[in-house]
Amino acid sequence: MSKTTATAVSKSMEVCMNNDRLSVDPQPAEVRGMLYNLRDMGGFAFLVLRVGDSLLQCVYDKQPGEALPLLESALSLKGEFREEPRAMGGRELIVSRLTMLSSPKEEPPLCLNKQSLNIALEHEIPLRPLTLRNQRLRSVFKLQEGLVRGMRRHLEDAGFTEIFSPKIVASGAEGGANIFKLDYFGKTAYLAQSPQFYKQLLVPVYGRVFEMAPVFRAEKHDTARHLNEYISVDFEMGFIDSFYDIIAMETTMLRAAFAYLSEHYAPQLTALKLTLPEIPGEIPCLRFQEAKERVSAKYGRKIRDPYDLEPEEERLIGQLAKEEYGSEFVFVTHYPTKKRPFYAMDDPEDPKYTLSFDLLFRGLEVTTGGQRIHDYDTQVAKMEAKGLDPAAFSDYLLLHKHGCPPHGGLGMGLERLVMQLLGEKNIRATSMFPRDTLRLTP
Amino acid sequence: MSKTTATAVSKSMEVCMNNDRLSVDPQPAEVRGMLYNLRDMGGFAFLVLRVGDSLLQCVYDKQPGEALPLLESALSLKGEFREEPRAMGGRELIVSRLTMLSSPKEEPPLCLNKQSLNIALEHEIPLRPLTLRNQRLRSVFKLQEGLVRGMRRHLEDAGFTEIFSPKIVASGAEGGANIFKLDYFGKTAYLAQSPQFYKQLLVPVYGRVFEMAPVFRAEKHDTARHLNEYISVDFEMGFIDSFYDIIAMETTMLRAAFAYLSEHYAPQLTALKLTLPEIPGEIPCLRFQEAKERVSAKYGRKIRDPYDLEPEEERLIGQLAKEEYGSEFVFVTHYPTKKRPFYAMDDPEDPKYTLSFDLLFRGLEVTTGGQRIHDYDTQVAKMEAKGLDPAAFSDYLLLHKHGCPPHGGLGMGLERLVMQLLGEKNIRATSMFPRDTLRLTP
Repeated sequence: MSKTTATAVSKSMEVCMNNDRLSVDPQPAEVRGMLYNLRDMGGFAFLVLRVGDSLLQCVYDKQPGEALPLLESALSLKGEFREEPRAMGGRELIVSRLTMLSSPKEEPPLCLNKQSLNIALEHEIPLRPLTLRNQRLRSVFKLQEGLVRGMRRHLEDAGFTEIFSPKIVASGAEGGANIFKLDYFGKTAYLAQSPQFYKQLLVPVYGRVFEMAPVFRAEKHDTARHLNEYISVDFEMGFIDSFYDIIAMETTMLRAAFAYLSEHYAPQLTALKLTLPEIPGEIPCLRFQEAKERVSAKYGRKIRDPYDLEPEEERLIGQLAKEEYGSEFVFVTHYPTKKRPFYAMDDPEDPKYTLSFDLLFRGLEVTTGGQRIHDYDTQVAKMEAKGLDPAAFSDYLLLHKHGCPPHGGLGMGLERLVMQLLGEKNIRATSMFPRDTLRLTP
Repeated sequence: MSKTTATAVSKSMEVCMNNDRLSVDPQPAEVRGMLYNLRDMGGFAFLVLRVGDSLLQCVYDKQPGEALPLLESALSLKGEFREEPRAMGGRELIVSRLTMLSSPKEEPPLCLNKQSLNIALEHEIPLRPLTLRNQRLRSVFKLQEGLVRGMRRHLEDAGFTEIFSPKIVASGAEGGANIFKLDYFGKTAYLAQSPQFYKQLLVPVYGRVFEMAPVFRAEKHDTARHLNEYISVDFEMGFIDSFYDIIAMETTMLRAAFAYLSEHYAPQLTALKLTLPEIPGEIPCLRFQEAKERVSAKYGRKIRDPYDLEPEEERLIGQLAKEEYGSEFVFVTHYPTKKRPFYAMDDPEDPKYTLSFDLLFRGLEVTTGGQRIHDYDTQVAKMEAKGLDPAAFSDYLLLHKHGCPPHGGLGMGLERLVMQLLGEKNIRATSMFPRDTLRLTP
C-alpha cells in the first residue's frame, strides 16, 4: 500500500466490527470489511479494508497462482493483529484465512481509493453511491455526524427537549414563494420551510426544545450555497433576558461540538487535514447598520441594498471580523424589520430594526435567529402591518393568546456549517445526496 | 394544590432551569416557569410551575388584596428551597419575590392542569398547542424523546453511523400507490416512503448506518394505527450472517432503550403510571405460516388471506406469544415473497418465503425488517420477476453491481412503539401534531 494512503488515515484509528473494539493483542481475530485497496507484492499482498468507519491494513500470504479478490469485494479475514508503526493505526492484521462474503459484478468505473478523486462535482455527484466509499468523502459525512452528535449532546445537557415536528404543513412559516406545494388528499399542502411555529408552540411546554431535521426551500435560483432540501439545526428557548442569550447558547454549542470532534473524530480530522478554528470567548457582534458602514468604509464598497446583506458584503464582514477581531465567526445583529419575518421582535429602541441576528462563519451566513414576539396584541398588530391575516394563523396564535414566555431561537444550516469548516466552494460537496433545481437523483 | 395533582408527578423530579440542576440547599434561587396550577389558601398560595420538563411547587405569601397571576403566566420566582416530603420532588420553593415575565391575553379555554383532560381525541387534537402543556401529554412526548435517545445511544455504541437521507426523491422505495407526489421545478417528485435505498447504499461506506427521520405514506384509509407522516427509526447493517443478526440488534436496542428510560425518565414513567414490559433474553420467533396456523387452531379463526396477516391475526399472535411464551413481543418471520418488496432476499430453502420479519408488540406490528439481496444478478432477476424495469433503478443498482456485503435492516414506527407502550387505542395520541387524511393542522 502506498505511503500516501497510509498517512491519509488516522494514527488513532479504531477498528470496530460487530460492536467489538479490537485490541492489538496477538489473539485470533476476525475482521469483516470492503476491500478498498490492494497491492500485490508477489508472494504476499497488502489488503486495505474499510472496516466500520476506518481503514485497516492487512497482510495476506498468497498461494502460488492465487487470484486476488476484486476491489469492493466484501471479505472476512481471520488472523492476528501485529504492531506495525508504518501502518495507519499503528497495527496491521496478519491474515491466516480469507473468506469472500460477496463479490461485485464489476469493479467500479472510477478509482475510489485515491486521496482525491479528481473529478468535477457535476460528474461526481451522480456517482455518489460509489464515491462516498472514498476515504475523504466518507470522512466528510462522518464529520457531519460528529457535529450533530456534539451539538445534540450540548443541547441535551442544557435541558433541551428533542422534538419531531410535521414536515407536511398547511401554511409556510417563513413566507415568500420558495415553498413546495403538494396535493394532500385533495387539499393543498406545503413542505415545511422550517419548524418555526412548532418549536415556538413547544416553548411553554418544555421551556427549551430542539430539532435536527430536513427543511425544504423551493429556491428557484441555483447557487453554490443553496440547497432545496437541507438539514436544519433548530432550537428555541424560553425565559430569555434578551436575544444575547441565544447568541451565548449558540456559542457554547459550537464550542462543545468542536471539542467533541477533537475528542472523538480525530481520524476524520486527520483524513481531511482539518484544523478546527478557535471560537473566541465572545464572538464579536456587529449591528447590521454598523457592519454595512464599516465594510463600506474599509473596503471602499458602495452600499446598494440598505435592507439586506449582499453575499459580497457578508464575505467582507467576515474578512473584517478576522482582521480586526481575529475571529472566523461574527454575529451580525439588529436586521431591518422590513426583511425579517413577522414573528421577529422589533427593537423597542428603534422599531425599524429587529432583535435578531445572523451568524457568519468565514463570511457566509450559517445561522439566522433572534427573539420572537410573545405578546398577543403585538403579534397581531405586526401581522396586520405586514399585510397578513391573523385569522390564517389561529393555531399559532394560541401560543400568544394563552401564555408564552419571552423566547427566541435559531436555525442553522448543517451543510453550510460543514462547507465552511472544510473550506468547500460548493454546498453540494457537503450534502450526501444534494437536491437542487436540476437534481432529484441519486 | 390538590393531593391528586401532587402524586401525579414524580418523586424524583428534578428542576432544570438555565442548565443548572438546583439543589435543596437553602440558598437564594431563581426559578422561571409557566404557572400550571394555583391554589389560593387565603394568606398564601401554592403555585405550581412547569419548569423545564418538570413541575415545581412554590409557596407564595400574598400581600393583602393582591391578585394572583393568571394561569399560564410566565413567572420568575426568587426564594429558597425547603424540604417538603408532601410535595412532588420532596421539596418546594418558598417565594420571596414574584416577577411577571409575560401574561396571557386570556386563560386557556379548557382546564389544562387536570390529571386527565377528559376530552375526545377529535376535539383535543385541534387544541394541541395548549393540551401539550398538560402534564400527562408532555410526559408522553418526553417519553418518546427518551426512547429516541436510548435507541440512538445503543446504535452509536454499536458502531452505527448516523445518516440524513433526502426526503424529496425521484421514485418510491416501497412501491404501491401510497406515495405523495409534488411538482419539483417542473418534474414530478415524491416524498420518501422510507430511506431504504439510501441506507442500503451507505452500508458499504460505513458498515452500519441509522436514521431517525420523518417518512411519508399517502395511505388513503383512516385507521387507528396509521399516520400519513411518521417518524421511522431505520437501521441497516452489513456483514451479517443472517437476518437473525438484525433481530438480535433490535432486541438489544429495545432493551437498552427501556433501561435508558428507567434510568433517566422516572418522572415521566411515574406521571404516566407506566411499568415497562420485560424483554425476554430471546424474543420468540414464529414463522409466518406457523403463526397463522397456530392462531387458527388455538383461537378457531379461519385463514382468509394466505399472504398477509390481518390486524385481528396480529392481535391473536400477540396473545399467543403472551400466553405460551410470556412475552409481550414476538417476531413473525419468513413472510411470503408475494407481499414483500423486491429488495427482500428469498429464503433459499423455499423461495415462496423471504428472509424477513415483523416485530409485533402487544399484537401490533411495530417493525418490518429483513435481509436484502446483495447480489446484482439476483436483484435484477427479482425486479424483472416483479414486473419492474431495472433501468429505472440504475442508481440503486450501483450498490449491487460494484460490491456490497450481505446486509439487512429494519424500519420501526416510533409513534406505534409509544402507542403500544402506553396502551393507547389511537396512534394520534402519540403523535404531537398528527397527519391523517383529514388533518393538516395544527
